Amino acid sequence: MDRRSFLKNSAIGGSAAAASTALAAPAYAQGRRTLTLVTTWGRGLAGVHDSAQYCADMITAATDGALTIDLKAAGELVGAFEVFDAVASGQADMYHGADYYFVGQHPGFAYFTAVPFGMTAQEIQNWYYWMGGKELHHELGEIFNIHSFIAGNTGAQAGGWFSREIASPEDFNGLKFRMPGLGGQALGRLGASVQNIPGAEVYQALSSGAIDGTEWIGPWADEKAGFQEITKIYYTSGFHEPGAALSLATNLDVWNELSDAHKAVIENVSAAAHSINLAQFMAENGAALQRLQSAGVELKEFPDEVWDAFGQASQEVLEENMGDELYARIHNSAMDSMQKSSGWIARSSGVYTAQRDRVLG
Amino acid sequence: MDRRSFLKNSAIGGSAAAASTALAAPAYAQGRRTLTLVTTWGRGLAGVHDSAQYCADMITAATDGALTIDLKAAGELVGAFEVFDAVASGQADMYHGADYYFVGQHPGFAYFTAVPFGMTAQEIQNWYYWMGGKELHHELGEIFNIHSFIAGNTGAQAGGWFSREIASPEDFNGLKFRMPGLGGQALGRLGASVQNIPGAEVYQALSSGAIDGTEWIGPWADEKAGFQEITKIYYTSGFHEPGAALSLATNLDVWNELSDAHKAVIENVSAAAHSINLAQFMAENGAALQRLQSAGVELKEFPDEVWDAFGQASQEVLEENMGDELYARIHNSAMDSMQKSSGWIARSSGVYTAQRDRVLG
Repeated sequence: MDRRSFLKNSAIGGSAAAASTALAAPAYAQGRRTLTLVTTWGRGLAGVHDSAQYCADMITAATDGALTIDLKAAGELVGAFEVFDAVASGQADMYHGADYYFVGQHPGFAYFTAVPFGMTAQEIQNWYYWMGGKELHHELGEIFNIHSFIAGNTGAQAGGWFSREIASPEDFNGLKFRMPGLGGQALGRLGASVQNIPGAEVYQALSSGAIDGTEWIGPWADEKAGFQEITKIYYTSGFHEPGAALSLATNLDVWNELSDAHKAVIENVSAAAHSINLAQFMAENGAALQRLQSAGVELKEFPDEVWDAFGQASQEVLEENMGDELYARIHNSAMDSMQKSSGWIARSSGVYTAQRDRVLG
Repeated sequence: MDRRSFLKNSAIGGSAAAASTALAAPAYAQGRRTLTLVTTWGRGLAGVHDSAQYCADMITAATDGALTIDLKAAGELVGAFEVFDAVASGQADMYHGADYYFVGQHPGFAYFTAVPFGMTAQEIQNWYYWMGGKELHHELGEIFNIHSFIAGNTGAQAGGWFSREIASPEDFNGLKFRMPGLGGQALGRLGASVQNIPGAEVYQALSSGAIDGTEWIGPWADEKAGFQEITKIYYTSGFHEPGAALSLATNLDVWNELSDAHKAVIENVSAAAHSINLAQFMAENGAALQRLQSAGVELKEFPDEVWDAFGQASQEVLEENMGDELYARIHNSAMDSMQKSSGWIARSSGVYTAQRDRVLG
């Protein structure tokens, strides 16, 4: 994923965002209140927009419209990356987005989406609900006057599409590869020429040879983007976003005014959205992967020594901000939780699925 | 898990259940309605009871008490395995339990908890929310006048505790092993002497040598049961319950009387309970596994040829009911979904976690 890519399918786009200067004022009528939900997603972006829409529809339904959520997709009220400031300032009431877009506000936000060599979607839930993650999310949000819950997840993102195979870490040296965020920073440490290309231009860049490869999201979204028309070399597992959570954030003043019942609705809808959206990506990715294979795509895995290099570079990148006290607490809490919960998962469902899939073929 | 084991920690127990003959009548006061929720769990049974309590508390909170859920644990109103009939008949309004306890009512209920060589917790969610599972759950429930959602999950259950190592399928020949349900039926096909022993008596049976081994739930619950005091041989991955979902069922007449808002609350709380409970088991199991290892427990895995035999026996057991049209549709839908979604999961988060855990040690 990257910031700009999510705009490409927006029905309205960035120019409308710039044109809109209207403030969203709270609307009350007959005990009903309309809350404006801005998102980082264009309406056409399946999966992630679906999760925002689920939250809007379900909060409205579960409160019988006492809270009516008015979803404004990226560009319809503010631009995709203006949603954080819009909600912090009260211009909008809520946002749905990926919190790692806001590492400029605080680097700790990365952990509430995904970090390279970090937690899978299941591990994020273990941490979030039971091992201190939610409390840290709230502590971090309070600095910016927001109150957030995780409310969507893409699952582990694919390693990406390459014009040639990767046999060793040295093959990244000089490779022109599109990967945003902390993963891209890690890849840069391997000598890659990391490219930041707007989502709408990636297909053309890969097609023309301007870049040697790109990551995107996973089979469902990648197939829609059409990369299989350009190259058949697809690395399915990646190191950079092993389970990208999405967040539903509410302006803290608005949150504090809500009844306990409405707070409970928002918290439960967020948790439901997280798992239902993750299941959607898993269901759609599974079907898309089969179609890609039928279309002749070769599924590849990076060799061990490449993973070793990914791991080393990722740890270096993650440790760059350890001077910030809150970042360090978030990092240590997340890594400690991951270390504690991963052992059982590997030995139970991990071994089980490997054996089952082997036996059933 | 087994049916009777869940009673052992009940504060009141089965005798109180037999003594209680009171019918739960709907209570209305000031627009509020109390719904009686009976469960298959004793109050002392951490994890599964917690999930029922979460549903009760959150439905009450999110409706501001307009639906007040009065939880009656196993034995407090009806016995653990009377909850299905109690809700079907309207004696109680809702139950929280594991639907595979009710295979006597219909064998298709097994798929909404777990079947041997079936779906993991993630795969169940993929199927349930996006590939037809929920609709089949509702179709099946309608026959019995109930309307259900999955609302909890233990994750993959452990292979179990053994007095001696398992080197080949022949080692199950004559082995006295406690395993309930369809998994036990499969084990019987390998020649095991499958024992049905009430939960409260399993520790003593294993300790005295009356049985050679037992499965239970996973490290968290197994440690509480104390099996590590008797044997140090612990097979962590099992074939019999790869992701045991729990259900929240409502009497269909009661369901149909609810407002759309209250239906939305119950549906969202159920989905939230499923993932939050699964995360609880993963967090607690991870910590407990580390303690068991510190206590000298040896973590084992069955060899490939044992898994081959598990797979063969499981498929035979699952195919026994294919003459029932609805069972066959549920089986085929579940297996088709599992086959479609498992490929991507294995190649993405599966490969990722194996590499990450290898690199990070």
